[in-house]
Amino acid sequence: MKERVTICEVGPRDGLQIAKTRMTTDDKIAWIQSLAAAGIPEIEVGSFVPPRVIPQLADTAEIVSRLVPTNPQWTIQVLAPNLRGVQNAYNAGVDKIAIPVSVSEGHSMANLNRKPAQSIEMMREIMAWLKAQPRKVPLIAGASTAFGCSIDGVVTTAQTVALCKGLADAGVDEIMLADTVGYAHPAQVKEVVLATRAEIGPVLHGLHLHDTCGLGVANALAGLEVGIRAFDSCLAGLGGCPYAPGASGNVVTEDLVFMLESMGFDTGIDLDVLLASRAVLHAGLPGEAMHGQMPKAGLPPTFRRAA
Amino acid sequence: MKERVTICEVGPRDGLQIAKTRMTTDDKIAWIQSLAAAGIPEIEVGSFVPPRVIPQLADTAEIVSRLVPTNPQWTIQVLAPNLRGVQNAYNAGVDKIAIPVSVSEGHSMANLNRKPAQSIEMMREIMAWLKAQPRKVPLIAGASTAFGCSIDGVVTTAQTVALCKGLADAGVDEIMLADTVGYAHPAQVKEVVLATRAEIGPVLHGLHLHDTCGLGVANALAGLEVGIRAFDSCLAGLGGCPYAPGASGNVVTEDLVFMLESMGFDTGIDLDVLLASRAVLHAGLPGEAMHGQMPKAGLPPTFRRAA
Repeated sequence: MKERVTICEVGPRDGLQIAKTRMTTDDKIAWIQSLAAAGIPEIEVGSFVPPRVIPQLADTAEIVSRLVPTNPQWTIQVLAPNLRGVQNAYNAGVDKIAIPVSVSEGHSMANLNRKPAQSIEMMREIMAWLKAQPRKVPLIAGASTAFGCSIDGVVTTAQTVALCKGLADAGVDEIMLADTVGYAHPAQVKEVVLATRAEIGPVLHGLHLHDTCGLGVANALAGLEVGIRAFDSCLAGLGGCPYAPGASGNVVTEDLVFMLESMGFDTGIDLDVLLASRAVLHAGLPGEAMHGQMPKAGLPPTFRRAA
Repeated sequence: MKERVTICEVGPRDGLQIAKTRMTTDDKIAWIQSLAAAGIPEIEVGSFVPPRVIPQLADTAEIVSRLVPTNPQWTIQVLAPNLRGVQNAYNAGVDKIAIPVSVSEGHSMANLNRKPAQSIEMMREIMAWLKAQPRKVPLIAGASTAFGCSIDGVVTTAQTVALCKGLADAGVDEIMLADTVGYAHPAQVKEVVLATRAEIGPVLHGLHLHDTCGLGVANALAGLEVGIRAFDSCLAGLGGCPYAPGASGNVVTEDLVFMLESMGFDTGIDLDVLLASRAVLHAGLPGEAMHGQMPKAGLPPTFRRAA
């Protein structure tokens, strides 16, 4: 029996928010459907932010409204920045809501215009509202800059653990440790994961990694080795952060899944179908550079496909 | 006291042998000197193969003859394919000689025109000759296709261990396990390293990794975690193998050293100077694509330089 690792594809949100060109709603739906066809179990399909903030994601409500009635077998996740976004996401019928908060004050002010402590206060209100609703929609908090910040520099393990403790106490269902700017190294990943888990237990869910310095996949391996079984990633390594200068793309879904499946983990993802999804992405966003090493070489002849 | 990890920069050999354009001898010397200035302790500066086989490396004898009189503090390593190459390298005054042998029969026949068992016979003759010389020049065998082969497909751990046992019995000083085509995954790296070390002990020296499928740095991390403290790598991830279709470049020196230094290992390499070496490489080989993530983003502000 293979052990499960859950991939959440965040390309349609994190990957598109800093794209230089716009992807049409139809193209986004086609891309999301092709990702789902590959067996990706969770897809972050957009963000309920005001359209003026991230115009590329202004059609999130329409995307959700078109996907929900299809009752997909996969989890429709969206990002929401605040209570209003959470309410909109809930009312749209999503399966899961992600909220970014920042460990570092500099990123928190630049990205969210509030201090980390205010994020925890906000999260209490959000959880109170969510728990009062008839439908259970899990909330996953993303602890941004958990491993370093392009504005504040070093972020200590103690800072990250303290924010995660505050989030857990506020009642969030899951927490992702996010290497928003891609400064983490494997020893740090292990240290922060272990320290955070020691404080909040299984509320620590997974890792959101970027490949800024080429360590994205190695950091995922480090996380795996200390028991992490959930990762965010982006097809073709799209993405970045508009408020984190120098941050490059997310860890590449194709390379990460190739590693996981090669090592004997079960992601439920068919890599051949996933590779085909690149063409759908490219058709909808032809100007964007596509990353990933395995897709260039193709699956090696030694790779054993799941039965 | 930090633990040492030794990097052997193989760019001037492995990185150039399939380059589409030629680098002049002066440009190669300038590049090698810039790598040495960064503190790289071992540099593979060329190959004593017949010039018709790899025209890009036809000036290896001249390069060595210009470097040896400078008595560099770093190790001048060259590749040699056979006894004659070893004799030429020895007589040229190099510090260390690398010999590639292949675990898989397909790669062995295509690359070396002999079977793996014949490589071991050849190695016995080479070691007998070398040991009869007045100067001790260590010989490092590279076990190519130790993790898979683009021609034969799967290479079993038992095959790799058996070849390494034969090489150790033949008296080679050190062995590198080479993922020539870049098919390895981290769990396999650990398995093969542990099985090989169980058979030949400390003669197992290090790993030579490629980034074909995006796992180069993760595989290095896996090796580190089972005690490997020596790696081959290429500045800007140049390289490949002319007899291994689909193989892409070597693991990127800049990204690998960034990981090692970030994790607290001592490579002796100054990353700022190493990054400057990219310009020297690019000046001498302007047509070649340069890889590496950390160089694009620059060293993060959180990176602590050695005192």
